[in-house]
Amino acid sequence: MTLKVIVSGPRGRMGKEAVKMILNEDNMELVACIDRIHNGKLLKDINGSPDVDVPIYEDPNQCFQSIQADVFLELSIPDVGYLHTKLALQAGLRAVVGTSGFTKEQINDLTQIAGEKQLGCIIAPNFAIGAVLMMQFAKRAARYFPDVEIIEKHHDQKLDAPSGTAVKTLDMIMETREAKKQGHPNEKETLPGARGANQAGVHIHSVRLPGLIAHQEVIFGGTGQTLTITHDSYNRQSFMTGIQFALNNVTEITGLIYGLENIID
Amino acid sequence: MTLKVIVSGPRGRMGKEAVKMILNEDNMELVACIDRIHNGKLLKDINGSPDVDVPIYEDPNQCFQSIQADVFLELSIPDVGYLHTKLALQAGLRAVVGTSGFTKEQINDLTQIAGEKQLGCIIAPNFAIGAVLMMQFAKRAARYFPDVEIIEKHHDQKLDAPSGTAVKTLDMIMETREAKKQGHPNEKETLPGARGANQAGVHIHSVRLPGLIAHQEVIFGGTGQTLTITHDSYNRQSFMTGIQFALNNVTEITGLIYGLENIID
Amino acid sequence: MTLKVIVSGPRGRMGKEAVKMILNEDNMELVACIDRIHNGKLLKDINGSPDVDVPIYEDPNQCFQSIQADVFLELSIPDVGYLHTKLALQAGLRAVVGTSGFTKEQINDLTQIAGEKQLGCIIAPNFAIGAVLMMQFAKRAARYFPDVEIIEKHHDQKLDAPSGTAVKTLDMIMETREAKKQGHPNEKETLPGARGANQAGVHIHSVRLPGLIAHQEVIFGGTGQTLTITHDSYNRQSFMTGIQFALNNVTEITGLIYGLENIID
Amino acid sequence: MTLKVIVSGPRGRMGKEAVKMILNEDNMELVACIDRIHNGKLLKDINGSPDVDVPIYEDPNQCFQSIQADVFLELSIPDVGYLHTKLALQAGLRAVVGTSGFTKEQINDLTQIAGEKQLGCIIAPNFAIGAVLMMQFAKRAARYFPDVEIIEKHHDQKLDAPSGTAVKTLDMIMETREAKKQGHPNEKETLPGARGANQAGVHIHSVRLPGLIAHQEVIFGGTGQTLTITHDSYNRQSFMTGIQFALNNVTEITGLIYGLENIID
Repeated sequence: MTLKVIVSGPRGRMGKEAVKMILNEDNMELVACIDRIHNGKLLKDINGSPDVDVPIYEDPNQCFQSIQADVFLELSIPDVGYLHTKLALQAGLRAVVGTSGFTKEQINDLTQIAGEKQLGCIIAPNFAIGAVLMMQFAKRAARYFPDVEIIEKHHDQKLDAPSGTAVKTLDMIMETREAKKQGHPNEKETLPGARGANQAGVHIHSVRLPGLIAHQEVIFGGTGQTLTITHDSYNRQSFMTGIQFALNNVTEITGLIYGLENIID
Repeated sequence: MTLKVIVSGPRGRMGKEAVKMILNEDNMELVACIDRIHNGKLLKDINGSPDVDVPIYEDPNQCFQSIQADVFLELSIPDVGYLHTKLALQAGLRAVVGTSGFTKEQINDLTQIAGEKQLGCIIAPNFAIGAVLMMQFAKRAARYFPDVEIIEKHHDQKLDAPSGTAVKTLDMIMETREAKKQGHPNEKETLPGARGANQAGVHIHSVRLPGLIAHQEVIFGGTGQTLTITHDSYNRQSFMTGIQFALNNVTEITGLIYGLENIID
Repeated sequence: MTLKVIVSGPRGRMGKEAVKMILNEDNMELVACIDRIHNGKLLKDINGSPDVDVPIYEDPNQCFQSIQADVFLELSIPDVGYLHTKLALQAGLRAVVGTSGFTKEQINDLTQIAGEKQLGCIIAPNFAIGAVLMMQFAKRAARYFPDVEIIEKHHDQKLDAPSGTAVKTLDMIMETREAKKQGHPNEKETLPGARGANQAGVHIHSVRLPGLIAHQEVIFGGTGQTLTITHDSYNRQSFMTGIQFALNNVTEITGLIYGLENIID
Repeated sequence: MTLKVIVSGPRGRMGKEAVKMILNEDNMELVACIDRIHNGKLLKDINGSPDVDVPIYEDPNQCFQSIQADVFLELSIPDVGYLHTKLALQAGLRAVVGTSGFTKEQINDLTQIAGEKQLGCIIAPNFAIGAVLMMQFAKRAARYFPDVEIIEKHHDQKLDAPSGTAVKTLDMIMETREAKKQGHPNEKETLPGARGANQAGVHIHSVRLPGLIAHQEVIFGGTGQTLTITHDSYNRQSFMTGIQFALNNVTEITGLIYGLENIID
């Protein structure tokens, strides 16, 4: 069965990638786009877009009434994104939202509509699916290996150390890890900082070098062995795997789910 | 609460490590050993053993009646191991078995006794806990990343390629992976074998070098990212983490469980 | 001392990066650009260019006569690139050339002029400096570790396996490696291809996954240890380190050098 | 041509490995051993030694006069080691010394004798050959990549951080590295220590986990690429590759060389 998708924001950075991805997937079909300009044109008429006969609409309601679709994929900007998603749900379409920045009220509102309409809606503002899996695996491995350190590596233009992902990984590990002071009880740093940041006994190390993009290793050590979970993010398209997964799954759920980690199990 | 443990086979390779581990753990206490020689001596009297006042028994029944314990840890050899475990369960002790080689009948027999006595019994003949987690994580990641390759690296005295762990990992991945031919449809090897073994579309690569011990990477690729799960086994003591985990968990289960993978979730 | 640089091809993919790099380096100054359009304008007048008062010339001779400079950096296209470089040398400028595609005759011609004029000229058409170092290190390590395997990893749109870099690395290793059949003499593949391509005893493994860019590991194994040299190329700007190195070194050499590997020692 | 070797200290930890290695090498022959006991016996008579007809001598002079050999390999203890080496050189044998602890005077003395006798003598007290190469490669890469960080990983029984090898690597890097403050000028640690130890701008990170042995990565970052040199030391036999290399090279040099790094180029 083919999944018919309407994309909002086809000219944006994320939208462009999503259009490409949908056209490449055998089980998906791009049936329309919503754009704030270019009403009535076809995608192939737009400079820099793929050569396909997909109609463009400025008015979401008109689009939803004219085009038969399964899922609405919102990738434009927060303001209009909320309205589009609301209208899509009200028109009976499932929705996947890849933009961040919705307010709590807006999410509550959409949750209610999705519930009433018995439609799946997934809002996945943030993480590449690989990063979510890394954190979930780390949380689970910590039940069996209380000794763990995190090395995160980023380009040297990054201001903060450690990274937000490292801190979030640590938080998840702490949910299952037994409290433990790691390393030798009498270990000492002959150069201050060598052992990294120490948070609840877990040591975190931040590498910053030109060339690097966004990488993290979570290393668990036990007698005679180590288990390492590594995520390398090479570019911003890494969210696309998550979008694709959400499109394939939104038809199987009912109600609104916020955050990829809640549909990955 | 302290876990009182009786160890069978304290002079063997595994037994020696287990004795050391139990003495090091705050929540465990070594209360007796069963050995086919040295009856009536203390552990500290045995050459090469730790300096502790732990009594040694040749007769398991005598040991179980004289010593109050929580768990029996069987690490001797299959023949007597079965009998010891049976007697321990019958004496009301939980049992953890780290030896391999029990027959199917023996396992069935122990399963029945553990059930009747409402006692936990864990038989964990095989894998380091890190290897089990690697395989379980790989199986789960394959649901979201259908593109995966395995690189396993071993010392150059290993005869078979790929390793048994790589094949077992592949089997577990196939339980969740969508069928897919990987790589470019028209890819070609200018040197035969470069793309490794191809099993159901998953490529497996076996590295053999002096110095290496036993290592495996499972690499998942998706748009703009990779997720890698790596297990490094540095020596044969790597099973100890699994033994320790089993000791801590056998008091919380009822009946016999065969294989670490069935208590790790 | 500041190095005054004229850049040819400032709007191209490589030229844009080079302009940015020169503006960022404390010891370099961008004094002019040569472009086939925009004569008489300033760089800041060109859409998408940095906001600097650097003059643009269409005629290279006019540029070389009007502007006092130390080095000419040629990054446009082969046809005009050759002529530009020749004129620069004749005008008394050192030259660094980052375009590929010069004919053997053109290189001979430039070699002669650079020799006569006693000027440094570096033509570096090809490799990131990191890849060159990886190959040189591998060649040297092979003198001490005859056991070596290569794992190269690329995106899944790559057609050939193994990669050209892997083959070139192997060639360099063979210059110093003692002949040796690696692995166990009786090793056998239970899945064909598992041990990779075997060239002169060295095994090469090619991984192809979406998300990956261009990566290579050269692993040397000896008793109780491994030595691994890894190069990760994350984007096409990786040549920039080589350009920068060449700019800094062209003032210290006399005559033409072809290939980065010949100025790296 | 076969290299005839006399081993001093065949029952020690290093000696045992060396005997095994020499017996395995096609171009080497074990012709005698020097031991403080077992005079007149054969190696095969000694419990735990290989089954070979190699004679054992207590008196080094008697050994050197009775047995025709090319190289003397000293692996016993410092006191007698010095005397043995001196007698070997005086008897016209080249010498390779794998024990540490010779005094400066002893080394000067041996240097003089080796010079007079025009004989090669290599004293290699310390590093696995892989570690030496890692440091030499790092020193060289630093000429082209001023941005570098070091991650060293050891078992959690290690007291000091960073490791001696990391500090020595840093020292070697500083010989060629341009001074540079790395990372973003305004970077800040939200958890103190995250960025590791900062020595002359190079950041060093020390990981301590059970299971780990002795590992180090030196990571160089440049535009769009990273170059990583990794050494993994899995057991204490890793010095054997250096011994083997020294044995093969001592016949080609004249005079005394102290430290493997001075014969590796």
